[in-house]
Amino acid sequence: MEAAVLYSGGKDCSLAAYILDKLGYEVRLVTATFGICDSFKYAKEAADAMGFDHETKKLKRDIIEEATERIILDGFPRNGINIVHRHAIEEVAGQFCTIADGTRRDDKAPWLNLPEIRSLEDRLGIEYISPLRGIGYKTVKKLVSDLLIIEEGVDINKGDYEVELREFLRKKGYDVKEHFLVHKQSRLLEMR
Amino acid sequence: MEAAVLYSGGKDCSLAAYILDKLGYEVRLVTATFGICDSFKYAKEAADAMGFDHETKKLKRDIIEEATERIILDGFPRNGINIVHRHAIEEVAGQFCTIADGTRRDDKAPWLNLPEIRSLEDRLGIEYISPLRGIGYKTVKKLVSDLLIIEEGVDINKGDYEVELREFLRKKGYDVKEHFLVHKQSRLLEMR
Repeated sequence: MEAAVLYSGGKDCSLAAYILDKLGYEVRLVTATFGICDSFKYAKEAADAMGFDHETKKLKRDIIEEATERIILDGFPRNGINIVHRHAIEEVAGQFCTIADGTRRDDKAPWLNLPEIRSLEDRLGIEYISPLRGIGYKTVKKLVSDLLIIEEGVDINKGDYEVELREFLRKKGYDVKEHFLVHKQSRLLEMR
Repeated sequence: MEAAVLYSGGKDCSLAAYILDKLGYEVRLVTATFGICDSFKYAKEAADAMGFDHETKKLKRDIIEEATERIILDGFPRNGINIVHRHAIEEVAGQFCTIADGTRRDDKAPWLNLPEIRSLEDRLGIEYISPLRGIGYKTVKKLVSDLLIIEEGVDINKGDYEVELREFLRKKGYDVKEHFLVHKQSRLLEMR
């Protein structure tokens, strides 16, 4: 059984991949990218450290147009990030039947609600798994520290949607500090 | 790290226990019982088959009174089952700091919503984990068939709340068929 894990190189999707591996899935890490910058290479490094296959999946430019328009309109990135995430799942669904991500119980974005999940599963004929959806922040932190070696900080490079969304907006002349909060990032260095 | 898994012997809580074990927890299976019938013995048998420690936790009679009153009032068991589940977590919280259950993404009961989970965690100082909360019915079915050997049917004996709630109502002269739907039960026989 193959499972694609949408992968940024961060701690959450790394832990999700770890769990799927333990459940017997052949894990394939997939980083969605618009090709705006080369941040996917950080995801690739982390994927290599996990010892799982890794590939990138190119998303169409009109998706980042739609997502960033939404972010400008909202003044916050949540809905824009979700637009990218849904499209990434759709894109990966052409190749994989089981698709997972690192969404945690306490996450705001990316976050699919139950009707959205069921609709995606039915429409695309996939099984969607979020192994961390029933696990809170504190527990994820403990598990990560037990199982993985990560680096954390506000200026860690990883291959998530936000990096490219920020860069795209910056190039268009927007002040991204207005729309994105600065928060701690993480990146997998090694498995314990 | 010890984790108590609320355990009926069924497939979902068995799979949840399997995942926690793979995450490095010392798994303790705990079956809550009112002592109305001896259905906990089926959970004990399944626990032995999993090779994890098992214990029963006695719940107070006023909880089953409250839960069955609610079921009679509602005409369906969901809220009554949730009352028992919350009390079971509270009871187990006296002994364990990490408490898990087999709640699946598509479950109706027992089911704690996010505010209820956060309130329980803060008030009791516990971490609550539902390893299957991000996994749909179809995927759980596949994983169970890959990892566990179970028996399934409408008349399988296991140690869940519903067995005792039904029996309590039956003894009080209620027609339980009016309040509970007949649905397929499962019980773990062996690990693969």
